[in-house]
Amino acid sequence: MLGGAATYISLAASFFTKPRLVGIVGDDFADEDAALLAGRGVDLEGLERVPGKTFFWAGKYSDDMNDRETLTTELNVFADFNPKLPERYRSEPYLLLGNIQPALQRSVRAQMTGLRLAGGDTMNFWIKDFRAELLETIREWDFLLINDSEARMLAGESNLRKAASTILEMGPHTLVIKRGEYGAMLFRRDSFFIVPGYLLEDVFDPTGAGDCFAGGFIGYLAEQGFDLEAGHIGRGDLSRAVIYGSVMGSFCCEQFGVERFRTLVRADVDARFDEFKKFTSF
Amino acid sequence: MLGGAATYISLAASFFTKPRLVGIVGDDFADEDAALLAGRGVDLEGLERVPGKTFFWAGKYSDDMNDRETLTTELNVFADFNPKLPERYRSEPYLLLGNIQPALQRSVRAQMTGLRLAGGDTMNFWIKDFRAELLETIREWDFLLINDSEARMLAGESNLRKAASTILEMGPHTLVIKRGEYGAMLFRRDSFFIVPGYLLEDVFDPTGAGDCFAGGFIGYLAEQGFDLEAGHIGRGDLSRAVIYGSVMGSFCCEQFGVERFRTLVRADVDARFDEFKKFTSF
Repeated sequence: MLGGAATYISLAASFFTKPRLVGIVGDDFADEDAALLAGRGVDLEGLERVPGKTFFWAGKYSDDMNDRETLTTELNVFADFNPKLPERYRSEPYLLLGNIQPALQRSVRAQMTGLRLAGGDTMNFWIKDFRAELLETIREWDFLLINDSEARMLAGESNLRKAASTILEMGPHTLVIKRGEYGAMLFRRDSFFIVPGYLLEDVFDPTGAGDCFAGGFIGYLAEQGFDLEAGHIGRGDLSRAVIYGSVMGSFCCEQFGVERFRTLVRADVDARFDEFKKFTSF
Repeated sequence: MLGGAATYISLAASFFTKPRLVGIVGDDFADEDAALLAGRGVDLEGLERVPGKTFFWAGKYSDDMNDRETLTTELNVFADFNPKLPERYRSEPYLLLGNIQPALQRSVRAQMTGLRLAGGDTMNFWIKDFRAELLETIREWDFLLINDSEARMLAGESNLRKAASTILEMGPHTLVIKRGEYGAMLFRRDSFFIVPGYLLEDVFDPTGAGDCFAGGFIGYLAEQGFDLEAGHIGRGDLSRAVIYGSVMGSFCCEQFGVERFRTLVRADVDARFDEFKKFTSF
């Protein structure tokens, strides 16, 4: 079924803003999948279609949904992906770079002409085997968004508070650490924010939850017109962006794949934001 | 060195109220340990001293402090412990039952004459091998305070939200689930509250942190004169009690054993409470 980082990120962000997607698919990519994205207002001009098969991943989750085993990864047309941004994408102020080879993330960022806020995700593979390339890449980012085990690996430090300090020396002024069912943390040099995870009655399928978090995070900041340079928005807005990220990640888990986003409306999103406020206030 | 549930619970509670301790030690129990407790205002009339050796436990933690291996457990005089409450303890309104055989917890509760709020802790051993006895015991409790894996085991349900609903049918109207470094949750039938764990720079020794949580929780409620019957204090106070529990658990981890409580003052406790407010508000 439809999946992938760009899909989840742009679907989640579409509840806040009009995302412009960059990605690559093969000639097997279903029209109805493109229609789902377009129907949510996602700009698909940057979706390259080439002969061949679309990237494919299959995995199996543990009973408690906290671990998963990859069964199949077929790169297919993704193997030769070299992202080229459509002209009218380049002046956008907000950029979220999905998990991909750091050099490609860097080339995408270099094509942007008026960035206000740029950042992205990465994974253990790049941290271990492409460390120098990754460090060169994230040095230019405003924020880095990774999970807790990746933060520990990147910093070479098991204590998350110390790991965060180390990572904030690598370039990004803002670090978001995703902790799966345990929630998320936001670190800046002078402050931090922690939110527990939303308590779902049923975690049906966590695939894509981290990407939906990223989409909610950047989507909310884009909607707010977040501008660090102007200095008029501070940690409060970044914290609320973490909540909206958590909200979108939690919805993602409620149904298989992208299914939940077929029926979700903005009022649901805001209602869950209010729930977060209610169960964390004291 | 000095340790044990009664020690940690009463030390933590002593920052809020004047706890009255019930326990048993051998003739090897050090005067300086009794002096530490007495110096913090803990009433030791209920501390039984008998010939023989004091209970002894030794363990080894994993590098990330999230697992521990028991090296030695010697029950010693604790094996024949049958708690008898001093007369002037019996009319106290707040009772916290540390982890011990459920039948003994039940007998202690039966000796109390004017309870406003009673509850306690238990562990996997009692849940697995003394289930009927445990269920009979907690049926009379207002609150149960256990960790997440124990909650799952007790309910026979891996989803914590569902597990909480099941446990709230067993008697206690309030359930507190401790999640170690990930914080704590409070469940009542009509609402729940979740707080992330405090981010320590160094987790020096987590031994006793769960008991310190319990001591902070009940200590704060005792200090407030918490009275469910009167209906004048609701979830808000229980949530703040969870924060004070988290605060005391976090201090406990900062030094070896009970060391941190030699220098800690109430102002430190309230300052950390304010920190919790700051890093969780949005």
